[in-house]
Amino acid sequence: MRMYDIIHKKREGFELSDEEIAFFVEGFTKGEIPDYQAAALCMAVFFRGMTGRETVKLTECMADSGDRMDLSRFGDLTADKHSTGGVGDKTTLIVAPIVASLGGKVAKMSGRGLGHTGGTVDKLESIPGFRTSLSPDEFLAQAERVGLAVIGQTGNLTPADKKLYALRDVTATVDAIPLITSSIMSKKLAAGSKNIVLDVKVGSGAFMKTPEQARVLARSMVDIGKSCGRNVNAVITNMDVPLGRAVGNSLEVAEAAEVLRTAKECDLLQVCRVLASHMVALFAGISPEEAEKRVREAISSGAAYAKMREWIAAQGGDVSYIDDTSLFPKTAYAIPFTSEYEGYIHSMDAELIGDASVVLGAGRASKEDVIDHAAGIILERKTGDRIKRGDVIMTLYTNRENAEESALEFCRKAVVFGKEKPEPEPLVYEVIS
Amino acid sequence: MRMYDIIHKKREGFELSDEEIAFFVEGFTKGEIPDYQAAALCMAVFFRGMTGRETVKLTECMADSGDRMDLSRFGDLTADKHSTGGVGDKTTLIVAPIVASLGGKVAKMSGRGLGHTGGTVDKLESIPGFRTSLSPDEFLAQAERVGLAVIGQTGNLTPADKKLYALRDVTATVDAIPLITSSIMSKKLAAGSKNIVLDVKVGSGAFMKTPEQARVLARSMVDIGKSCGRNVNAVITNMDVPLGRAVGNSLEVAEAAEVLRTAKECDLLQVCRVLASHMVALFAGISPEEAEKRVREAISSGAAYAKMREWIAAQGGDVSYIDDTSLFPKTAYAIPFTSEYEGYIHSMDAELIGDASVVLGAGRASKEDVIDHAAGIILERKTGDRIKRGDVIMTLYTNRENAEESALEFCRKAVVFGKEKPEPEPLVYEVIS
Repeated sequence: MRMYDIIHKKREGFELSDEEIAFFVEGFTKGEIPDYQAAALCMAVFFRGMTGRETVKLTECMADSGDRMDLSRFGDLTADKHSTGGVGDKTTLIVAPIVASLGGKVAKMSGRGLGHTGGTVDKLESIPGFRTSLSPDEFLAQAERVGLAVIGQTGNLTPADKKLYALRDVTATVDAIPLITSSIMSKKLAAGSKNIVLDVKVGSGAFMKTPEQARVLARSMVDIGKSCGRNVNAVITNMDVPLGRAVGNSLEVAEAAEVLRTAKECDLLQVCRVLASHMVALFAGISPEEAEKRVREAISSGAAYAKMREWIAAQGGDVSYIDDTSLFPKTAYAIPFTSEYEGYIHSMDAELIGDASVVLGAGRASKEDVIDHAAGIILERKTGDRIKRGDVIMTLYTNRENAEESALEFCRKAVVFGKEKPEPEPLVYEVIS
Repeated sequence: MRMYDIIHKKREGFELSDEEIAFFVEGFTKGEIPDYQAAALCMAVFFRGMTGRETVKLTECMADSGDRMDLSRFGDLTADKHSTGGVGDKTTLIVAPIVASLGGKVAKMSGRGLGHTGGTVDKLESIPGFRTSLSPDEFLAQAERVGLAVIGQTGNLTPADKKLYALRDVTATVDAIPLITSSIMSKKLAAGSKNIVLDVKVGSGAFMKTPEQARVLARSMVDIGKSCGRNVNAVITNMDVPLGRAVGNSLEVAEAAEVLRTAKECDLLQVCRVLASHMVALFAGISPEEAEKRVREAISSGAAYAKMREWIAAQGGDVSYIDDTSLFPKTAYAIPFTSEYEGYIHSMDAELIGDASVVLGAGRASKEDVIDHAAGIILERKTGDRIKRGDVIMTLYTNRENAEESALEFCRKAVVFGKEKPEPEPLVYEVIS
């Protein structure tokens, strides 16, 4: 078998055989197939696509390229969620305790963020004492005892995906549905959960810009996940505007803690309920409606918040910060972004707000960058709010002396004003199952 | 400027700017742009194509990537030809002396063959004493004095093309029209001739399998060549069956010499007349019809043959081999391929006959292989000939003890018999100017 023939076959629009896909993944992971041939194949896949059968095989081969987490001791109670990424997305911090409080086993490996803000692991590390590196035994024991453990990616999980993603990232071949699908789902397969809910973000702050694109990706991931023997749902959620009010690591942890503690209704809680309900429905084998009742009860009774505290304590985190979020360190500067207009906020570009937060120190521009956990943005007002001249729309938190001008510039671009109140957009577009 | 953005732009179907193309060619040649990004771009070009403007710029940048041969001393009398390659294609050996005998200046750099048989340089080296390496001064002085010099590629001509072609060859991106065009035409620009005739082969033994494909490529090359300030014509010629009767290096030199010496009518001479007429028409500024008259006269008068002898002698070749081709060394084995059928030869697959000649030792399977100049095939019969059982269709010449069975196998596959005499195919399909 020759890689040349595999590229040529895909280029001409033919379906690759299981053997050809395995040959590619194994050879590429071992370094026997050079990057330039893999890049040519990825570009051919961008134009020609892959059938469901091809995508399943690619996903399985990538999942098999390294270690797999063995969660079999938990039977079918394991539940995982994956977000395609957005600005101010702290849903894991809220959803995971809800699900664990209802008997689910959330043994989750989570990434660090490259881009707008940190990943879940970065956010958790803003809690003093919180350990995101547990040994496999500690990790599994905690998941057993608490029902919930979240750690950074460890071991040699899906090395094929790591290598291929790095290549796609520099060859303009990231946004091909079969490649996105296999990248995400191979990691989910290797991470071991039986039940998986995908949060597919759509809008200005998301990778998928339209609900149609998001639907295609969600459909593909759900189908591939099911073909690989998992229970999978996808929830398509709005990311035209950041979710919640906080963007930044400790700011988001604080918001997540307050949402669970106060159970006050807001967009963030609404999205978290939907995600949690679908996770509960899958592992408990009940309808989403029945699951939602249980989720509401877990929140209102304080059981979910109690689980959050138990979890954070179990991983060494100082729970007093969760109970009193004013304990989190403050930044040297708090810069108001005020309105020069009177009327309504017509839209807020989530991606530009994310860019502003990177300037403030909340994200990484490159892998080596150190995140400032206290930096970020609080949205004092959101899309649809009526505002007067001089009203504070956002507060920008930073320890950087020279960040103000450039961050405000992003904010000015991000916010569009209008005379009329805009039509509200749905928070959840659709559930694909 | 970032290579990533250039790949993405082309992937999305946009036209690259001159600056972007120059950035790519320069960066890639210097090794600053990695192979995997160049491979992704080539695959995107395969699917999206390039506009004429883009192809001209790519061609010029590649021509400028290394040295250029300066033929300005010859004014507008320089004439070059390029063949897209076929089996038994010895036209340069015949066309070049005809054109030189009529006042053209053929200062030609020619390649070595990788594949079915050697290139022109390999063929010439089968003449004892013939030197294919001349210093630039020797080369130009001979072109001035004799009107004709053919050498192997020297110096640092189009390094960008060398590097890019090697990459395309292993990433299934060879057969994209803008990339073929820029590869061929950049070499022709760097080689310096004002007038260029392209012999675009079509058929089983050629890169282009249908006249339509050949027409698209010919049109592209002619347009790009003209846009770069050269006079260019393309002749689309038949390569369904090997041209002439000889396939193999000294066998082809012998055939070429005999065709010019005897001026006996045959398919090979016919194609050579067309190619030579168009070269003469371009450099002399006359009509192809007028040029054809002069070409016929040069052949029948013996002037062209005399020029062939003068040329070969000038490059140190032993002319007695040209005058008496029976002097060329014979191979140890001469194997007849005889017919088991009675009827007509319906077709002869040129590519399979080429494969047989490689088995016999006439070609290279890899760059390091040494060519056996005496090995090859003589087609005793050709497509359309009536044959009886036991008639010899080809004679296979080889010094290899174990080549017979596998070579005969290729020959058996190559020849298709039929009861009816097949319709003759055109030798020359079209001239594109």
